[in-house]
Amino acid sequence: MKAYRDLEARKKRVSAVGNAMGILQWDQQTMMPEGAAPARATVLAELSVMMHEMETGNDLSDLIDQAEAEADQLDNWQRANLREMRHQFIHANATPADLVEKIVLAQSESAMCWRLARPKNDFASLAPKLDALFRLKREEAYVKADIMGVTPYEAMLDQYDPGRREVQVDRIFDDLGGFLPGFVQQVMEKQAAGTQPLMPQGPFPIERQQQLGHELMTVFGFPFDRGRLDIAHHPFSGGADGDVRITTRYDEADFMKSLMAVIHETGHALYEDGLPQQWRGQPVGKSRGMTLHESQSLLLEMQAARSEEFIRFLAPTTKRILGGQGPAWEPDNILRVYRKVEPGLIRVFADEVTYPLHVIVRYRLEKAILADELGIGDLPGAWNDLMAQLVGIRPTDDTDGVLQDVHWPEGIFGYFPTYSLGAMAAAQLFSAALGDDSDILPGLGRGDPAPLFRWLDQNIRSQGCLYMPDELLEKATGSPLGTAAFKASITARYLGQAE
Amino acid sequence: MKAYRDLEARKKRVSAVGNAMGILQWDQQTMMPEGAAPARATVLAELSVMMHEMETGNDLSDLIDQAEAEADQLDNWQRANLREMRHQFIHANATPADLVEKIVLAQSESAMCWRLARPKNDFASLAPKLDALFRLKREEAYVKADIMGVTPYEAMLDQYDPGRREVQVDRIFDDLGGFLPGFVQQVMEKQAAGTQPLMPQGPFPIERQQQLGHELMTVFGFPFDRGRLDIAHHPFSGGADGDVRITTRYDEADFMKSLMAVIHETGHALYEDGLPQQWRGQPVGKSRGMTLHESQSLLLEMQAARSEEFIRFLAPTTKRILGGQGPAWEPDNILRVYRKVEPGLIRVFADEVTYPLHVIVRYRLEKAILADELGIGDLPGAWNDLMAQLVGIRPTDDTDGVLQDVHWPEGIFGYFPTYSLGAMAAAQLFSAALGDDSDILPGLGRGDPAPLFRWLDQNIRSQGCLYMPDELLEKATGSPLGTAAFKASITARYLGQAE
Repeated sequence: MKAYRDLEARKKRVSAVGNAMGILQWDQQTMMPEGAAPARATVLAELSVMMHEMETGNDLSDLIDQAEAEADQLDNWQRANLREMRHQFIHANATPADLVEKIVLAQSESAMCWRLARPKNDFASLAPKLDALFRLKREEAYVKADIMGVTPYEAMLDQYDPGRREVQVDRIFDDLGGFLPGFVQQVMEKQAAGTQPLMPQGPFPIERQQQLGHELMTVFGFPFDRGRLDIAHHPFSGGADGDVRITTRYDEADFMKSLMAVIHETGHALYEDGLPQQWRGQPVGKSRGMTLHESQSLLLEMQAARSEEFIRFLAPTTKRILGGQGPAWEPDNILRVYRKVEPGLIRVFADEVTYPLHVIVRYRLEKAILADELGIGDLPGAWNDLMAQLVGIRPTDDTDGVLQDVHWPEGIFGYFPTYSLGAMAAAQLFSAALGDDSDILPGLGRGDPAPLFRWLDQNIRSQGCLYMPDELLEKATGSPLGTAAFKASITARYLGQAE
Repeated sequence: MKAYRDLEARKKRVSAVGNAMGILQWDQQTMMPEGAAPARATVLAELSVMMHEMETGNDLSDLIDQAEAEADQLDNWQRANLREMRHQFIHANATPADLVEKIVLAQSESAMCWRLARPKNDFASLAPKLDALFRLKREEAYVKADIMGVTPYEAMLDQYDPGRREVQVDRIFDDLGGFLPGFVQQVMEKQAAGTQPLMPQGPFPIERQQQLGHELMTVFGFPFDRGRLDIAHHPFSGGADGDVRITTRYDEADFMKSLMAVIHETGHALYEDGLPQQWRGQPVGKSRGMTLHESQSLLLEMQAARSEEFIRFLAPTTKRILGGQGPAWEPDNILRVYRKVEPGLIRVFADEVTYPLHVIVRYRLEKAILADELGIGDLPGAWNDLMAQLVGIRPTDDTDGVLQDVHWPEGIFGYFPTYSLGAMAAAQLFSAALGDDSDILPGLGRGDPAPLFRWLDQNIRSQGCLYMPDELLEKATGSPLGTAAFKASITARYLGQAE
């Protein structure tokens, strides 16, 4: 047990540094004066290096070996904790230090270049930096794949969604890629023939929107005594263990964007807040990867908060706080507004039906990039072709095309799929929860999420990393991750019929 | 040079952790939701232990030895940097680890107990905890004194004001303790016979006070692009290198308290902001101890901002922003309000003339405590006796007596003197600056601190820890730290004559 105990002490320290970085990063996005950016970058870089040193090294490797040899003395949670430690060790140690350094440098150069290139629609200026970064990421993927015995793409994906298989993602995305384009057409035709949504007219003063967000967070039991809501350029959920901080931004012309961001980030925050306290600071006490994390935000945003029951509860509150008047504020119209389906160029503005198609575009391209089957010069064209084929619109410039996301310029590969895998998981979990407790939908209708949250606490939040992501999902829902619940959900919602 | 370079790299890391802690502590006082306190305490404790480990150990000792052996290869700044590293090493290593641990525990217990005991006027409940802590601090002081070859009190003082000698503090405080009580009487008689100050009547809305504070900070060139002003329960100056954050609190009935706190903390912040950038992250690039730090805040608050020239500039601004009317807002009256001398029980509310007497009470008592000449049971009585003798008022309870400060319950000994040594240094520096540049006072009169700041930048801020505190002061003013300038300043200001 000594080796295992030593590992716990080490992880406690890693977690303390991680928590410190969480608050520093939140501060960077919300409070920090702009001129402090270089100094903050230096501090964060130094803490990252310290983290990495704490996560690597021969003595750590020896300790994990020893603890694994004595694993029969451990209980289930401790064994899962040790499994997560091994997983972290593999990811931290697989890549040689000099390659890590080159990647960090290349990322920072290409991300900086991207910031200038995007607004100028200037892919050409970014291309050499991006190409250099792609080469290094390819090297990293192959080195990791070799050590982990997985495909290069899986080695990347595994950082965000541990244990996920490429073949499984292919199957899910092939299914959606086949199903959705026709489905979108059907929905658009149906919506064109039906009553048109009326957009509530602003301006909506920011203080009112803040009050609305606050009231919604209160309905969802956001723990304001150990959390905050602030303004940032991009909505995110962050902070530290026991201190969950979310952000949103406000548009006086459109209150819905901010409201839905608040609900989305609240979903993330409630997951963090509900993780097992007795394992706080240990790997097994952390969230179960990005697919599961996104499932928690999307379950709240797309499943619960856009259910007819909840919208009927929400509409009068919204109307009261924003002082709305007229037919645009009736629940039926709000439902129509929230459920408007319309293909667009930008992923982050996409509705829930077209969203997976944006992700599939990125997934297919980043696999081709890692496999070295797609040259940098062909990337914008390949992007536009896939967009035309899947989403049905061809971008006319790169600003709203291949340049729209920060992920690739920051060297992030294997992350995109988790957005839509999370949407699949959200639908699957919501459907299972409804099957287990018939009071969940009525609860949402009266502004009481307690029945839903009891189910989520028991099945997901309290489980930390006791199981692997798919095991957890299968225990909670009875099936491995798939598309059935999502397709049934959007079919019922948008075509008004069971699939 | 290799040993020295290695030391620089280590200090860079120590500084990164210190900067992280600076932001976390600022956040704790300004932004953190209350329920996150236990989690935050865990993170800060873990980072403190990491800091301590980085500041101790045989290999660090060896590196310093080696670098000292090669010191002839270093330039002045590097040599001073190495001297500071040795100084930090001595303080970090002198106390055995088990004693450090006992002290941390005893501090936290007595500080917690103090929070409850103070409002209830219950010294008896605190006494055993405080006594236990005093015993441990005594042990620490003797161990350090032995290693450093100084007196036990000096070993404590040296943490805050490096190189300061007890005999020098005795001389200064004996001088002030003899001079001030009679001086206070004279001033009070003169003020009683003169025109009485009229207090401007509130309420003063917080937003107006914030605007006033902001405008004053702008006058003083506060770097808002790398700094902030926020609200906290106690005013402080904190943050990180290149990111100076100050706080104040507002009282709708009295705008002066908040305003003077803003000016005081701005003085601290401008010192931090003016430290030599090329030495950022190194010990020699830090501020020159607490006496010098306090000299910078008091120079702004007490010398510059309470000068007749500046008050004549400030009064109309204040009147305009707060919407004041009538004779209370005339510069002559504002001067009288700011310069009202009146002995009181509470140090933090004391005017600049009686303030040193409060410090002398504490200085004499904490020396007696460390020397084991004063038992815990006799402490409240000794406090009251000294207050009656020096300040001229005897507390009627311990809440406004020995229980008023957090320092002793937190195990902080040797810090109190720096408040008044800082006041001496402030007067001495201001006097020297005025002698060197005749445009400083006219500058303040037109709301332009540039002449004063040029002098401070050159003589203090840019010097970091190149010299020891008294060396720095002597280079800047031509004399070692003494009382002459302070006495001359208060004599001119309060009795209207040169001493």
